[in-house]
Amino acid sequence: MKVHTDEIRLETEGFCDIRDVSAEVGRVVADSGIRTGLVCVGCPGSTTGVTTIEFEPGAVADLKRALESLAPEKGRYDHNATWGDGNGFAHLRSALVGTSRTFPVRDGAPALGTWQQVVFLDFDNRSRRRTVIVTVMGDSE
Amino acid sequence: MKVHTDEIRLETEGFCDIRDVSAEVGRVVADSGIRTGLVCVGCPGSTTGVTTIEFEPGAVADLKRALESLAPEKGRYDHNATWGDGNGFAHLRSALVGTSRTFPVRDGAPALGTWQQVVFLDFDNRSRRRTVIVTVMGDSE
Amino acid sequence: MKVHTDEIRLETEGFCDIRDVSAEVGRVVADSGIRTGLVCVGCPGSTTGVTTIEFEPGAVADLKRALESLAPEKGRYDHNATWGDGNGFAHLRSALVGTSRTFPVRDGAPALGTWQQVVFLDFDNRSRRRTVIVTVMGDSE
Repeated sequence: MKVHTDEIRLETEGFCDIRDVSAEVGRVVADSGIRTGLVCVGCPGSTTGVTTIEFEPGAVADLKRALESLAPEKGRYDHNATWGDGNGFAHLRSALVGTSRTFPVRDGAPALGTWQQVVFLDFDNRSRRRTVIVTVMGDSE
Repeated sequence: MKVHTDEIRLETEGFCDIRDVSAEVGRVVADSGIRTGLVCVGCPGSTTGVTTIEFEPGAVADLKRALESLAPEKGRYDHNATWGDGNGFAHLRSALVGTSRTFPVRDGAPALGTWQQVVFLDFDNRSRRRTVIVTVMGDSE
Repeated sequence: MKVHTDEIRLETEGFCDIRDVSAEVGRVVADSGIRTGLVCVGCPGSTTGVTTIEFEPGAVADLKRALESLAPEKGRYDHNATWGDGNGFAHLRSALVGTSRTFPVRDGAPALGTWQQVVFLDFDNRSRRRTVIVTVMGDSE
């Protein structure tokens, strides 16, 4: 049993910028030498998100539209009234989507579907530098 | 510390077919001999979901209705416009619900509430064969 | 590699009572001596939730309002029609938010953002005693 961790550095545009990080996650799992176990993909922050989707422009646009419906960018938020930073929608989206996801690792790779990509979402209302942490745990046999 | 993994094979009807997999998850944890740690229940795929609910017909119907409201089967999706496969609602539901969940393991069993069942959800718009992966990690003492 | 587990005991008011458990989670990680790995925060139950948010009154009120919109307390639920316990909204919220979240551990602490707190949510329609389980797994080097 061992643990291996690495980072993915991203510069995002904010405003629901959705990035496919599957290749990087797969590389970290491969680098770990771990064959069977778990991989957690998580990004510290109160305006970040991690999930999976078929990363093609149509499905990505559908997800953005659904998040805009759940937590509209121009909605009224108590967070904004208090802090004046205008990103209440981003905090809410992050709380609903979650900032990390954990997947099985099998045969030395994340167990994902053919059309399933791991995506990082930046909900904030400005460009940001983000560090996504990939943690792999398991057996190398 | 060790890791143990097994599969649950399901044939589903699609269209938000919700299946209680708690007994199988409990069996895999028992088989592992692990007493303290974590169990991850995840299903590869871009139209799958895993969560927990009280698995009784009323609560299950309520969850189906809420998902239909969040991502209506007959809604307009860019994914459908591009690919013509008509399952844009399924991709969206999967991205929002998530394809895996991780639970504590205590005293050799998943730490779940009395009325809390682990469920697999098939959001796709056709019947599917699915493989849910159960990964247990921890100590056997 | 090792696993360490501890509990956080809470007495809640129900009705979307949201509690910041970050300090307790950080303490369990520190107690574990684990420097690199994962921490899972999970609460058994079919009317519980765990997520992260900036724990300030505005953002917390925004989250409560969004959950009331997704699953209104006074809505019509098949669960209520069957069981008469009136907490169908709580079961639905729990299924949508999830009862556990897993975060990276780095340098002996949960890898969270400056404004990101781990919160426990009690969705039930009465006061409850809850036990949140914190499970830390990884390397102490």
